[in-house]
Amino acid sequence: MSTKRTVTPGGKGKKRAKNDTPANLNRDLNKLRGLAASTLVEMDAEKINVSDLALLNLGRAAKEMTDDEVKDEIETIMVQAAKGILTGNGLEYGVALRAASNQLYIPELDRLVLKDAVSSRPFSNVSSVKKVAISTRVLSLIHEVVSKNIHITKRDLFYTDVKLFTKQSESDAIIEDVATMIGCTRNSLNVVASEKGVVVGRMSFRDDGDLIDCTKMGVGGKVIPGLIDRVSDIKGDAEFVLLVEKDAVFMRLSEDRFYNDYPCIIITAKGQPDIATRLFLKRIRTILKIPILGLMDSDPHGLKILSVYMHGSKNMSYDSEHLTTADIKWLGVRPSDLERYNIPVECRLDMTESDLKTGRELLNEDFVKKNPKWVEELELMNKTKQKAEIQALSSFGFQYLSKTYLPQKLRAGDWI
Amino acid sequence: MSTKRTVTPGGKGKKRAKNDTPANLNRDLNKLRGLAASTLVEMDAEKINVSDLALLNLGRAAKEMTDDEVKDEIETIMVQAAKGILTGNGLEYGVALRAASNQLYIPELDRLVLKDAVSSRPFSNVSSVKKVAISTRVLSLIHEVVSKNIHITKRDLFYTDVKLFTKQSESDAIIEDVATMIGCTRNSLNVVASEKGVVVGRMSFRDDGDLIDCTKMGVGGKVIPGLIDRVSDIKGDAEFVLLVEKDAVFMRLSEDRFYNDYPCIIITAKGQPDIATRLFLKRIRTILKIPILGLMDSDPHGLKILSVYMHGSKNMSYDSEHLTTADIKWLGVRPSDLERYNIPVECRLDMTESDLKTGRELLNEDFVKKNPKWVEELELMNKTKQKAEIQALSSFGFQYLSKTYLPQKLRAGDWI
Repeated sequence: MSTKRTVTPGGKGKKRAKNDTPANLNRDLNKLRGLAASTLVEMDAEKINVSDLALLNLGRAAKEMTDDEVKDEIETIMVQAAKGILTGNGLEYGVALRAASNQLYIPELDRLVLKDAVSSRPFSNVSSVKKVAISTRVLSLIHEVVSKNIHITKRDLFYTDVKLFTKQSESDAIIEDVATMIGCTRNSLNVVASEKGVVVGRMSFRDDGDLIDCTKMGVGGKVIPGLIDRVSDIKGDAEFVLLVEKDAVFMRLSEDRFYNDYPCIIITAKGQPDIATRLFLKRIRTILKIPILGLMDSDPHGLKILSVYMHGSKNMSYDSEHLTTADIKWLGVRPSDLERYNIPVECRLDMTESDLKTGRELLNEDFVKKNPKWVEELELMNKTKQKAEIQALSSFGFQYLSKTYLPQKLRAGDWI
Repeated sequence: MSTKRTVTPGGKGKKRAKNDTPANLNRDLNKLRGLAASTLVEMDAEKINVSDLALLNLGRAAKEMTDDEVKDEIETIMVQAAKGILTGNGLEYGVALRAASNQLYIPELDRLVLKDAVSSRPFSNVSSVKKVAISTRVLSLIHEVVSKNIHITKRDLFYTDVKLFTKQSESDAIIEDVATMIGCTRNSLNVVASEKGVVVGRMSFRDDGDLIDCTKMGVGGKVIPGLIDRVSDIKGDAEFVLLVEKDAVFMRLSEDRFYNDYPCIIITAKGQPDIATRLFLKRIRTILKIPILGLMDSDPHGLKILSVYMHGSKNMSYDSEHLTTADIKWLGVRPSDLERYNIPVECRLDMTESDLKTGRELLNEDFVKKNPKWVEELELMNKTKQKAEIQALSSFGFQYLSKTYLPQKLRAGDWI
């Protein structure tokens, strides 16, 4: 494709200088650039704030807070709690309800948000006494963590007081409650999950101060840090993000240095996305303002994963603003691709009963219903009762994905 | 600890210049340096070659091969197969038996190796016809992969001919067979597993030509590439490797930049080690010649994980030479640590029936029996019927591990 090549030391000379965009690349990316322009318009339109929707009785949206802000909020909560005790009302906390009944899908925002129902948890009530005790201990531990500017895992937190927490599920549940009490994102509490995501491609960022150039991360890529608030300085000349469901597909594209042929960032969370990967993706979109194309298996599970990136999981709806990236396009592998690309019958799999059930359920989801093309694809999947993995494309050769399928898709602007 | 500090851009100024080794660091690392010296002696002693043990009827050891060598070997196999057909003997392959009956633990090597039993698989036999057909197809696909210098996953391979392979387990099993037929490591076939391992610390290497400085990989660390033969140029001033069982503990040490206080490399495979992490560890030990200290949960599962790094899994015994690193020291958390460090009773867990069974089984393993201190620890564990995770140390504060426990252990030389 290219005439001008720079050779990486020890590499296979597959690299192309970043600003070398030959005529055929311009042609291939024509549709994508149109999408990028419309994405910007959508992003402007999206600036409806949750607070503008006051009539809907929404709860306060979770805010990204610094360690000091979280510390201040915890101190405020404890002063109020102490006042309650001193005035004879006893110790109690007000916690936002996170049940489905208190969640709402907002079409304007295209994501789930929390409504304003708050339950009061008094220490003097048998049903809430333990939760209040645990909340107090968790607040004190989080205070310690943010004061020291360190990060911990849920497991670390649990182990600081096994006697009180008894089971990890008890301390885990309270962490989410504490986030809503403080009004911050869970990430702001410095309680992090383990790392799953990986990134390569045309971007750089700083991880705890260290400059990471994602075009120079070999084939293995760079871990997306679980400590996402240590990430800064996101830059790059990528024109789109390729969001990949699976590790194996990421490896294929990374080894082929696909991002040198098509200026992109390749990200995978290796299946169900973790919080760090979702936050990282959202940051990239907000800062670089480039479209995101999803490459998933053609099955209900693939679409579910895509929907978690786009609209969030119900459990974390109080924090959906920072976790969701609504306008991801579904590039493939789509049910209609199976015929269009002549995927051999033996590489397709029959959908199980549980797949079919999930498929029918997805058709009732608001975010599917508002996109007629998605409905069409899902109906086709439910009708043919066939699914296929991205790897089904390997039946045409191992590099068919990077050398044929993706270039064709990009050139045709074939996303929905 | 240190008076001279260099500040990382955007970081918290925790870094210390690499060659700054104050008196107390020299004191802390005194025992470790003794261990490093004895490790070198052991490595020399270990240079017994499998071929020197000819009397034991061992099979040929798997060799690391280049893409071209694998290609040549496949062509030789196919020429022989064609000759067999032309001489009227029909198509057949000779495949090394990988059953437990054909495996042997060699104390001198301290690992499992394959004996020399080979079974012949004729195409003309109903019981082996399908295996021969699959082997032929896999040989042809591997030939394509090594000719193109690319890497694929087991899943990719399966999908190139679903009709023939039917189930992925069928093509997976044949991949191992093909490796023994060629006489190469599985890694040489360019069939790779997904990436699990992460590394930070005082080393650098090249990943597909890109220079990776593991002291500048932020808190997230660098993915250990699944394509390990793209790794080259391993260098560094680390004095030991800290091999960590879990991601959460890795994160804690990485955020505290433990490797700046104690010159080390921190590696985790996030649980059960994958092949890439084991190959990477073996390379580091062979090249940097530094001791490896294991930090695992105090339970039979933790010890099992350590044993896979050290002695290999039975399934991959034909390839044990490149996958195992025999002389890892068990630093902690050991059963005797629970009393010595006063781990609170509520942070200890009762061993389950299955834990106790595994604990008893471990006592019968050759690699345990030859180390009386390991036997002692295991007997203590089985007697107290208590286990604990590394995180149990959090009960003394979140940074107890990096600021107190590990420094004490290193100073005392408390490994076995």
